Amino acid sequence: MSKIAVLGYGVVGSGTVELFYKNKEKISKKSGKDMDIKYILDIRDFPDSPYADKFTKNFDDILNDGEVTVIAEVMGGVGDAYDYTKKALGKGKSVVTSNKELVAKKGAELLKIAAEHNCNFLFEASTGGAIPIIRPMHQCLAGNDISAVAGILNGTTNFILTKMINESMSFDDALALAQKLGYAEHDPTADVEGHDACRKICILASLAFGKHVYPEWVHCEGITKLTLQDVEYARNWGGEIKLIGSVKKTEDGKILPMVRPAFVCNNNQLSHISDVFNGIMVYGDAVDEVMFYGRGAGKLPTASAIVADIVDAAKMSGTSISQTWEDSSDNSFIADYKDDIVPIYVRVSGISAAQAEKVFPGAEFLSRKDQPSDETAFVAPAMKERDFDKKLAELGGNVLGNIRVLELD
Amino acid sequence: MSKIAVLGYGVVGSGTVELFYKNKEKISKKSGKDMDIKYILDIRDFPDSPYADKFTKNFDDILNDGEVTVIAEVMGGVGDAYDYTKKALGKGKSVVTSNKELVAKKGAELLKIAAEHNCNFLFEASTGGAIPIIRPMHQCLAGNDISAVAGILNGTTNFILTKMINESMSFDDALALAQKLGYAEHDPTADVEGHDACRKICILASLAFGKHVYPEWVHCEGITKLTLQDVEYARNWGGEIKLIGSVKKTEDGKILPMVRPAFVCNNNQLSHISDVFNGIMVYGDAVDEVMFYGRGAGKLPTASAIVADIVDAAKMSGTSISQTWEDSSDNSFIADYKDDIVPIYVRVSGISAAQAEKVFPGAEFLSRKDQPSDETAFVAPAMKERDFDKKLAELGGNVLGNIRVLELD
Repeated sequence: MSKIAVLGYGVVGSGTVELFYKNKEKISKKSGKDMDIKYILDIRDFPDSPYADKFTKNFDDILNDGEVTVIAEVMGGVGDAYDYTKKALGKGKSVVTSNKELVAKKGAELLKIAAEHNCNFLFEASTGGAIPIIRPMHQCLAGNDISAVAGILNGTTNFILTKMINESMSFDDALALAQKLGYAEHDPTADVEGHDACRKICILASLAFGKHVYPEWVHCEGITKLTLQDVEYARNWGGEIKLIGSVKKTEDGKILPMVRPAFVCNNNQLSHISDVFNGIMVYGDAVDEVMFYGRGAGKLPTASAIVADIVDAAKMSGTSISQTWEDSSDNSFIADYKDDIVPIYVRVSGISAAQAEKVFPGAEFLSRKDQPSDETAFVAPAMKERDFDKKLAELGGNVLGNIRVLELD
Repeated sequence: MSKIAVLGYGVVGSGTVELFYKNKEKISKKSGKDMDIKYILDIRDFPDSPYADKFTKNFDDILNDGEVTVIAEVMGGVGDAYDYTKKALGKGKSVVTSNKELVAKKGAELLKIAAEHNCNFLFEASTGGAIPIIRPMHQCLAGNDISAVAGILNGTTNFILTKMINESMSFDDALALAQKLGYAEHDPTADVEGHDACRKICILASLAFGKHVYPEWVHCEGITKLTLQDVEYARNWGGEIKLIGSVKKTEDGKILPMVRPAFVCNNNQLSHISDVFNGIMVYGDAVDEVMFYGRGAGKLPTASAIVADIVDAAKMSGTSISQTWEDSSDNSFIADYKDDIVPIYVRVSGISAAQAEKVFPGAEFLSRKDQPSDETAFVAPAMKERDFDKKLAELGGNVLGNIRVLELD
């Protein structure tokens, strides 16, 4: 019998408990393990909960109970969550988490502690919510040399972009709607500025390339500057604008992680992912490309990933699986994004197509309905971004927008 | 050190050996296991191969070598492949396979032998080629009650349909092109009649619902009767025609597996999957929907899945994982597809829309360019298929085509 503790009874925590008991029989049958939740840690009281007898406010009850072998950390943040996780792993109790901040900031350290104490630190729920991605990348693509990962990693911004794309809603209106529907926080910064996506690409990059990538090393741009005009030009070009978190190997043996809005071509599956859904594309030498798609957030989708990790942790009790990466002392293995060779879309006023063509020979010009006569939009041919910057300064005019095209090879 | 044997040095076998040695160091690091290929079984001679010293024509060399713990069966068929697999599992050697026929016809028996001998029978490569689907369904969705699975499971037919959809190529021309490019066999029956997709949906259905579904119990229709007119009407309706293998739970507690061309709505991700790519959608109570996408066939994509299974089998040496299902003695748990409630598209000549509306009230009428005045096309509202059959007979006229709409709830 594996005894489980759940730390935090918020949305994900209560979803985890609910899902566990709903499908308990199936889960036990599939896993071949008898399991039960023994504790739920929360500072609040839940006297009317059917699980009232499981609640505790004292983490030590859990830490010192030898029966507890698996702990689900769904509190969030890197305060108590970090402290409790370290202590639990140090006692050989496996921890599973949905806490992307914890994994992105402390992953290497926690993985090391787990390995040293023959237990596991699992985090399928931290990236892509319900989408199986961590374990498939580690296990199912084990035979591959991975060259790149790119994904729509934040459901809130994808919802906003979908409203802009399909309903010509402005960014502000779409954000207000997302807040009304509960998809966006009152303070939407972490989503719309790309910080949430950044943590997730850090986790995927660390897993894919074996060295911890810290969030502060990743160039990150959000979607707040996007306009409906950009959306229209993207469609004319043959794609959609999506907020993409990606990482790829570069020719000099480094890796380039980045978060930014990008023109995504219609023949890339990521262009078809709408609303709050996420999608993650993985490129490898044997598989070519594989994509994983599903709900990136939400009570039960996230609980699904947590419960899967609980089952795995219970099954692997006493064995440390090798889903791990090394810590990195500096960012010398991270490429400078200004050296990346990339086509970039430009929208500019006061400059004619002929003038733009002179500065950017080979540019692909775009059009939109009701395009003002003094507005020019084009995609500059692929060049180093720092060269593009120089040319853009040379071009002059009033630059109204510029957005990278997603290219991973 | 885990020693491996590869049975069969055809496309997949040689791809497996090539990929294993290409990424051997990475694979060992990721798995924490030292592994090597000791034998390659083939009746042919390969004197110039860099692996010439590993070849044998005698399976007993492998069976009786106590060092060999993992065998990759990539011969195909249910003759020797079945015999060798049974013998190997009986000796406690794990077997991994890409052989969908073997899994679909003998899976329950082989899984039982593996469990009895503390070894594993793994088959990630049998369905969806490079796409991680077997292990994610078993492990990552372990917390879910799965309600349905639906997928584009055959790359050859999806290539043909893509050519019909995007380039208005006729079925015959698209098939000829697929054969020229090596995507279709000289005798394309297994692909175009849906038999290949049928084996794959049997494997997914068995895994999802825990009882072996044999291919002869599955209603299966291919794509040979599809016309460009049907493709045009599907687009007018708001979707694409895809060959779908699916299985879903029915209200009476049975399951309904089926293979058939279907109208797939544009808001379903499966509608966007083109060329030889496959996609598999899984519906569960917690995840809602998740999709897995990638190359469903090919030398290295299939080898990727084989190598992943080899690594897992080596890591789990001496332990039987519970990825299994029961054998089923009869098909009483399979629903009759004629009882399924489904909207169906009809193309008919000699019948007016008014006449069709009388027989099928609430039908959605479709149009196409250059539609003959005596041709009517519509989607009949959802009803039991046997009731639809009666109404269609009542309608009269010359029925030129009828295709089910994909609905899984």
